[in-house]
Amino acid sequence: MTIKPLADRILIKMQEAEETTKSGILLAGSAKEKPQIAEVIEVGPGGVVDGKEVKMYVKKGDKVITSKYSGTEVKLDDQEYTIVRQSDVLAVVE
Amino acid sequence: MTIKPLADRILIKMQEAEETTKSGILLAGSAKEKPQIAEVIEVGPGGVVDGKEVKMYVKKGDKVITSKYSGTEVKLDDQEYTIVRQSDVLAVVE
Amino acid sequence: MTIKPLADRILIKMQEAEETTKSGILLAGSAKEKPQIAEVIEVGPGGVVDGKEVKMYVKKGDKVITSKYSGTEVKLDDQEYTIVRQSDVLAVVE
Amino acid sequence: MTIKPLADRILIKMQEAEETTKSGILLAGSAKEKPQIAEVIEVGPGGVVDGKEVKMYVKKGDKVITSKYSGTEVKLDDQEYTIVRQSDVLAVVE
Amino acid sequence: MTIKPLADRILIKMQEAEETTKSGILLAGSAKEKPQIAEVIEVGPGGVVDGKEVKMYVKKGDKVITSKYSGTEVKLDDQEYTIVRQSDVLAVVE
Amino acid sequence: MTIKPLADRILIKMQEAEETTKSGILLAGSAKEKPQIAEVIEVGPGGVVDGKEVKMYVKKGDKVITSKYSGTEVKLDDQEYTIVRQSDVLAVVE
Amino acid sequence: MTIKPLADRILIKMQEAEETTKSGILLAGSAKEKPQIAEVIEVGPGGVVDGKEVKMYVKKGDKVITSKYSGTEVKLDDQEYTIVRQSDVLAVVE
Repeated sequence: MTIKPLADRILIKMQEAEETTKSGILLAGSAKEKPQIAEVIEVGPGGVVDGKEVKMYVKKGDKVITSKYSGTEVKLDDQEYTIVRQSDVLAVVE
Repeated sequence: MTIKPLADRILIKMQEAEETTKSGILLAGSAKEKPQIAEVIEVGPGGVVDGKEVKMYVKKGDKVITSKYSGTEVKLDDQEYTIVRQSDVLAVVE
Repeated sequence: MTIKPLADRILIKMQEAEETTKSGILLAGSAKEKPQIAEVIEVGPGGVVDGKEVKMYVKKGDKVITSKYSGTEVKLDDQEYTIVRQSDVLAVVE
Repeated sequence: MTIKPLADRILIKMQEAEETTKSGILLAGSAKEKPQIAEVIEVGPGGVVDGKEVKMYVKKGDKVITSKYSGTEVKLDDQEYTIVRQSDVLAVVE
Repeated sequence: MTIKPLADRILIKMQEAEETTKSGILLAGSAKEKPQIAEVIEVGPGGVVDGKEVKMYVKKGDKVITSKYSGTEVKLDDQEYTIVRQSDVLAVVE
Repeated sequence: MTIKPLADRILIKMQEAEETTKSGILLAGSAKEKPQIAEVIEVGPGGVVDGKEVKMYVKKGDKVITSKYSGTEVKLDDQEYTIVRQSDVLAVVE
Repeated sequence: MTIKPLADRILIKMQEAEETTKSGILLAGSAKEKPQIAEVIEVGPGGVVDGKEVKMYVKKGDKVITSKYSGTEVKLDDQEYTIVRQSDVLAVVE
């Protein structure tokens, strides 16, 4: 069973705090917005969103930095995921 | 007697908590937004909405994840339904 | 004496609670928005609204579900009506 | 001395409560918005408003239903008037 | 020394309460918006404002009705003026 | 060392209260918005801002009236400056 | 390991207070917005953002003035960075 994000949305999986430390990246969240590193699991098809053509440039497997509050959390087979819009992805970590 | 959603709206039926557990999907709602899994019962015709052409890509029978607060609840023949805009559908579960 | 709605507005008449029960439809309103079933009495001509062309697809006699708070109530010859925009009509009941 | 409304604005004169009763029309205002019947006294020229072409379809002498709070009250020669945008006119009473 | 308003702005001078009474015009301001009669002193050149072409139709010497709160007050050589956008001018008094 | 404003921004230097008095101009600020006279020190290149082409019509050396709260204050070599958008400039004083 | 900003975003590194003083630049932040000088470390590719083509004119190595609150802070290999949109960059210091 899989979750297919629609339109300009992507399904991401937050990295554990431990992993995050190992990779040498720590996120200092401001009071307003708690940023997070996550892996991209599924990418929506893009297309016309609110009357504007959106192309998806984020790919499965990308490690991305997002702002947590814009997404919706979902649990599937005991794993927690988040669905966010591509425009909520701030950067790719390489 | 049936309910025909207009424009870019769809009629959905929330899945019972039991069913949701059986399918292995649980939703962890944030404080702001309580996401839900639902079955699509009826799909509006799409067309020009607020001056922009909207194509319907959600189909009858789809299992979808939505944000509850954007919809309107309706009861028909003792069954509860919700009317949401297609843009409130975050993902399809397959 | 009649009320002719302008632009993309329609004149509707809420159905009595009794009728609603007989037809088997009950509406569970959320705290934010009290939905209602109503009959369409008059339909505005449509046209350019806020710079966008609006076509009217709701017809006289349609039974519709709307969100109450977007409309304006009017009393004519002891009958109560509501004027709403067509975009506030969520669905047609058939 | 006359008041010439600009752009998409019209000058209206609210009808007295007495007249309103005689014509058989009573308005039940919601808490948020107090609707009123008024006579159109002057109509602005229309034209480009906020980058969009607006045509005036309301005419001098029309009896109209408006939402009071969107207008500005003006007193001229002991008579009270209101200036509203045409888009604040909900319906014409015939 | 003169003040040249930019873009779609105009420089106006509020009329004294006394003058206003002599001309037979009194303004009943709502709680939200205190309307005023003023003389147009200088008119900006118009042009592209926020990506939209604006033509100036208000002229020097016009007596206009505006909403006070949208403007900025300026004092020059002991005279008080207000700078408002043309779109804040509701009507011309003739 | 100089500050080059980007896009439709300009760098201005507020005039001292003393100078302001000598030039015969005093500004009565409303509670909401404290207007000020300033000299234009640097002008950004204009160009496409939020998808709209912006031309700069304010020039170095212009004395301008602005609304203080829309700008950002900067100190360089013991001098205080403010960076504002051109659209926050209400008028030029000549 | 590097952080690649997406769309119209850039990765910047705030300058230490000491450095800032040496270069003779001090920033007086208003209550609402705390401006800062930073060095540009990485620049996103630009492209279509919210339906509008954005060109990047900020370059790696630029010293820029930004408003702190619009960005998101990230820590990589013990260094703190901020991700901001190019439109949050007010000026380049040369």
